[in-house]
Amino acid sequence: MTQLSRTQSTFTPPVPEAKRWIEGVSFPADRPLINVSQAAPVDPPPAALRRAMAEAMEQPETHLYGPVLGLPALRIALARDWSAHYDAEVSADQVAITAGCNQAFAATMAAIAGEGDEVLLPTPWYFNHKMWLDMQGVRTVPLPTGDDLLPGAEDARALISPKTRAIVLVSPNNPGGVEYPAETLRALYDLAREYGIKLIVDETYKDFDSRSGAPHDLLRQPGHEDTLIQLYSFSKAYRLTGHRVGAIIAAPGLLEEVEKFQDTVAICAPQLGQIAALWGLENLSQWVAGERDEILARREAITAQFPRLEARGWRLKGLGAYFAYVEHPFAEGSDVLGRKLVHEAGILALPGTMFVPPEDPAGARHFRFAFANLDADAITVLFDRLDALDWPLAGTDSPS
Amino acid sequence: MTQLSRTQSTFTPPVPEAKRWIEGVSFPADRPLINVSQAAPVDPPPAALRRAMAEAMEQPETHLYGPVLGLPALRIALARDWSAHYDAEVSADQVAITAGCNQAFAATMAAIAGEGDEVLLPTPWYFNHKMWLDMQGVRTVPLPTGDDLLPGAEDARALISPKTRAIVLVSPNNPGGVEYPAETLRALYDLAREYGIKLIVDETYKDFDSRSGAPHDLLRQPGHEDTLIQLYSFSKAYRLTGHRVGAIIAAPGLLEEVEKFQDTVAICAPQLGQIAALWGLENLSQWVAGERDEILARREAITAQFPRLEARGWRLKGLGAYFAYVEHPFAEGSDVLGRKLVHEAGILALPGTMFVPPEDPAGARHFRFAFANLDADAITVLFDRLDALDWPLAGTDSPS
Repeated sequence: MTQLSRTQSTFTPPVPEAKRWIEGVSFPADRPLINVSQAAPVDPPPAALRRAMAEAMEQPETHLYGPVLGLPALRIALARDWSAHYDAEVSADQVAITAGCNQAFAATMAAIAGEGDEVLLPTPWYFNHKMWLDMQGVRTVPLPTGDDLLPGAEDARALISPKTRAIVLVSPNNPGGVEYPAETLRALYDLAREYGIKLIVDETYKDFDSRSGAPHDLLRQPGHEDTLIQLYSFSKAYRLTGHRVGAIIAAPGLLEEVEKFQDTVAICAPQLGQIAALWGLENLSQWVAGERDEILARREAITAQFPRLEARGWRLKGLGAYFAYVEHPFAEGSDVLGRKLVHEAGILALPGTMFVPPEDPAGARHFRFAFANLDADAITVLFDRLDALDWPLAGTDSPS
Repeated sequence: MTQLSRTQSTFTPPVPEAKRWIEGVSFPADRPLINVSQAAPVDPPPAALRRAMAEAMEQPETHLYGPVLGLPALRIALARDWSAHYDAEVSADQVAITAGCNQAFAATMAAIAGEGDEVLLPTPWYFNHKMWLDMQGVRTVPLPTGDDLLPGAEDARALISPKTRAIVLVSPNNPGGVEYPAETLRALYDLAREYGIKLIVDETYKDFDSRSGAPHDLLRQPGHEDTLIQLYSFSKAYRLTGHRVGAIIAAPGLLEEVEKFQDTVAICAPQLGQIAALWGLENLSQWVAGERDEILARREAITAQFPRLEARGWRLKGLGAYFAYVEHPFAEGSDVLGRKLVHEAGILALPGTMFVPPEDPAGARHFRFAFANLDADAITVLFDRLDALDWPLAGTDSPS
């Protein structure tokens, strides 16, 4: 009975953990909680989409099981959208629909790796990726990044072993916020190809990339389907987090393997979410462009506000998508300060310790701020509160 | 690169596989396909529930992430419903909501077992259980049943090893249709307790049990939370298959482990499905009683029709829930005959080979008919077509 179960092999999920920090804490009306812990829209989808969803209640298929790999019309529409965005040819049989992008990752890993295999994950990483690898008996090999938070192909090369099955990237990055340059992606793609392993690129935040046009040309490389697997989420673009719909873009042969996982764990993605995603693809491109503009404006607000924190020793390591990844100047670690931020500043943010291995000292120095739900005024308030923190600084005479 | 991936360790999912048998086949208007392959309602939920779901589109929470383990109101309502049905005390913190009952099983197994562990599964089994165990590196130990399709505790005892983590039961049974007597469940529960392993009871079809009242008294046993885990689905009772909502009823400590899996694979069950399930629990008990009556009437129709097949050598092994599990009299195996049934009789049913290990000869002798969608007239037509089959019989001079 000494063997651990799959879930016992990993840690407590960070977002619910952080939510527990605010349980029972009361925040004064003139100083409400600023929640920058989770990357999720807090507003509902636009009214026209809500109406379309309500109308779908009178279509019998909405309530029935659908095909395991997704509604054919949605697979076709996403393939078309993807083809246009990447100026490439993507067909419907290269698209699978999942119940969210976390599930897309889980299914993909189940399709390509087994017990004792290895996967390279740049740090800081997206914690649910690490958790799933833990639960699947796949060894996570941390791939350190520098101050720019970008993984290097030569660093990766040194970590590849005969057991390596994939390199997993998130771009635009969660938690780092950085938009990976096309050359970074290309170098890691070439490396993966050289070793016959997969390059998995989670593009959940692609609709909020500050660069216009295709962020990389990997889909235009001949034979890319042997190497490249892309993951996507409809949750952010159309505000459908509660409806659970994401996607995998990969070779049809790989999706046959994914089908086994999906049939067993999900049967199918929720039909209403799929219907809503399809409606969004067909009707909301202008609306999403406006959402992107708003996110980019908020990002600008953070850039504009950051100098006053910089003057106090903070550093902005990455900024983009929904996230600012920041280094704080304080003596204590971010895991301790995360709880103090709740009580002393009314801010809920995830500490860097949630995004790196326990032995990596960088975790204690950082925070992730998921700023997407804060308008410019709220961002000012956030910075006011951070600016006012008078905690002991690192490197001063505070020994703790 | 010889190691198999998790999905490569299991087989093609049966339901999509069977669906491919009918692709491109045309069925004459006067002889339409009778599809008894999948256990799923084909009608939408009742109009009042559809209205409630449409109205939920204007509640912002419907569109947002919810708590990982489910909406508190739904957990409370299911705990109350469960307490009443089993005349026991079940609290909300013993309930977790999942995206369907397949996911409930997946999360439960991840919480209790790891690579190389063993689980006892009576045969014929529910194929998605077998598939998940394969994918998780858990060895399935088949527990043979007799002509009554009931597993025996002493047979199970002989199969328990130090690696055994659980005995998994489905009652009423899929695919067998049999309703496990309380004594059968109790004997296996006592055995599981004796060995300190879990007894998992998938009660997806509990609402269609022909017996009124609690089907067992396991929830009334002191200390049951150390042993008993129940799984449930809202899909059948309220016709919510497309909305993906199920549940786990287990000890709170176990649900903390389940939370890790759910956070990583699902984030949360779809919110609309949860809202609909809650509405159903609060408003549809009379309606579900009527649904049960109809299923029981269809079951009666099968009992009434079966003698004419019996006269031709068929045997009814199990009948209940949504299923009839039957032994056919023909020389060829069910895997071959399954395809012939489509082309020669316009019937899609799953062969017994999909419910047993490849080496078990019983598979070739059986079919599962998921009859829940057939009214009495359609059942007559089904039997007419089966009655008319003039294929070579087993044990006659047909050598094939």
